[in-house]
Amino acid sequence: MSDLGSIKVKLRQFAQVRDWDQFHSPKNLSMALAGEAGELLERFQWLTEEQSKSLSLEQQQAVEEEMADVFLYLLRLADKLNVDLMEVANNKLAKNELKYPPEKVRGSAKKYTEY
Amino acid sequence: MSDLGSIKVKLRQFAQVRDWDQFHSPKNLSMALAGEAGELLERFQWLTEEQSKSLSLEQQQAVEEEMADVFLYLLRLADKLNVDLMEVANNKLAKNELKYPPEKVRGSAKKYTEY
Amino acid sequence: MSDLGSIKVKLRQFAQVRDWDQFHSPKNLSMALAGEAGELLERFQWLTEEQSKSLSLEQQQAVEEEMADVFLYLLRLADKLNVDLMEVANNKLAKNELKYPPEKVRGSAKKYTEY
Amino acid sequence: MSDLGSIKVKLRQFAQVRDWDQFHSPKNLSMALAGEAGELLERFQWLTEEQSKSLSLEQQQAVEEEMADVFLYLLRLADKLNVDLMEVANNKLAKNELKYPPEKVRGSAKKYTEY
Repeated sequence: MSDLGSIKVKLRQFAQVRDWDQFHSPKNLSMALAGEAGELLERFQWLTEEQSKSLSLEQQQAVEEEMADVFLYLLRLADKLNVDLMEVANNKLAKNELKYPPEKVRGSAKKYTEY
Repeated sequence: MSDLGSIKVKLRQFAQVRDWDQFHSPKNLSMALAGEAGELLERFQWLTEEQSKSLSLEQQQAVEEEMADVFLYLLRLADKLNVDLMEVANNKLAKNELKYPPEKVRGSAKKYTEY
Repeated sequence: MSDLGSIKVKLRQFAQVRDWDQFHSPKNLSMALAGEAGELLERFQWLTEEQSKSLSLEQQQAVEEEMADVFLYLLRLADKLNVDLMEVANNKLAKNELKYPPEKVRGSAKKYTEY
Repeated sequence: MSDLGSIKVKLRQFAQVRDWDQFHSPKNLSMALAGEAGELLERFQWLTEEQSKSLSLEQQQAVEEEMADVFLYLLRLADKLNVDLMEVANNKLAKNELKYPPEKVRGSAKKYTEY
């Protein structure tokens, strides 16, 4: 089993043994994921971009924990919807390679934001 | 190299060849991730929980694409901050196992939301 | 002065006297606003739609506080960008009236989500 | 009727005549609000803080429209939950005045983020 697959199974058991599966509709999981993404955001909101590149140990740990939360809900949602995250990520990346030809978008945030 | 590691490298090259690395401060990536989490959310906002469990093919594809976007930005952020996503996810899961003893929280959304 | 205007002034003074104005770039305020919207979301994530319509007193107070946070950051951002919230809201509503002709979209979440 | 009250009534009619009231549970509205906050965020994600302070006309209009969307959903939610936005905002501001004594938090993002 892949590493992602192994966490998915652990998450499934975690929910089952607590009878929390009833709360894990894809709709609810999308909310929980966005909520955690919001908490991650809050860790960075008053930092400058430069400060965000050199976090203190305390900040790094807080950020890692929020990233873990986002990841866990993403995996839980993937499990519920039978999504192969590695596959869809690779597909999306291939799509983006075509959508943003390097010679046309190089160094431009504008081109970037247009998508 | 692990699967996650291989996508990280691809993402790094994707940004480098477009000279987009300059935009990828952790602060900015946290915003992009939250933005994509918001788009994922929008796919579910007018669906009932039941409907979210049986998506049409079209809905499923749209959801998969937003999940891919969230995942790609999460991996990009992990690369920038030297975070091992698998490790932090496993650690967080272990922590949650202790925090939510099954016999105390079983079937309760209240206990769940208290964290 | 309008009610909104009076809160804007209070917020301006609140930031000034704490020397927090330096943190209130529109970029940062958009993050703070989204963070608070995420906290609001978390109050509802494990509730059914029905439960969200009949909140307990405790839930109602928590929700009200998150709504206040969203509103305060929205007003702060409006002040920084010289946006007249009442005006843009009325304009947007007029635009939506035209965009969604009642006889075409009535009762349809699909039409709704297409925008 | 106050200005906010007048928009609330317009929004109520807007939903009623389209038979969209059925979609406007507080849960769903919190999702829509967070989705719009995410779109607002996306307008700023690749801008520097400095750039976010001097938007082009085009950027300003896009930002104003997203702010209007956030505001409209906030008002709709306030209507559904019988929340007086002006009152809760003023209460929250008074609470924050006490929570962050100027002489203790002046100029510190750290104190700010601790809440």
